[in-house]
Amino acid sequence: MKFIAEIQVMPQKEILDPQGKAVLMGLKNLGIHNVTDVRVGKHIRMELEAADEETARQEVEMTCRKLLANLIVEDYTYHIYPSQT
Amino acid sequence: MKFIAEIQVMPQKEILDPQGKAVLMGLKNLGIHNVTDVRVGKHIRMELEAADEETARQEVEMTCRKLLANLIVEDYTYHIYPSQT
Repeated sequence: MKFIAEIQVMPQKEILDPQGKAVLMGLKNLGIHNVTDVRVGKHIRMELEAADEETARQEVEMTCRKLLANLIVEDYTYHIYPSQT
Repeated sequence: MKFIAEIQVMPQKEILDPQGKAVLMGLKNLGIHNVTDVRVGKHIRMELEAADEETARQEVEMTCRKLLANLIVEDYTYHIYPSQT
């Protein structure tokens, strides 16, 4: 069965996010002053074959921990759903 | 009123995604062979003050078009919700 995993990897709350700060400054230069905070992270969309959703979840969990997120400075969240096609 | 916008900026379907290909190769090196496709994009979490959700939506739309996404090679999606705090 085919699943889609939508994964977000974001800098942890306590960690300074220079890319977010750059976006915030860019917004001020555009004349937008009511944005109070911006954090920039990664979004990963993964297609995988798995017997069931639990198996898919385990693989996505392992992928996040071993490859996608640096757990010292980043957090990850994801959701998994069956692919329509 | 305070709103949170969760924005995803992803490479368009037709566009080659070298970062996604790199993740796919990394997965194979980890012994995970059942992932068929990976696309890597950006996730942006934005906090903003706005009178109502429609105003917030317009600002997020403008931010995406002018600052966050390169519309030639990227697509964006977002959802906006009132902040709890």
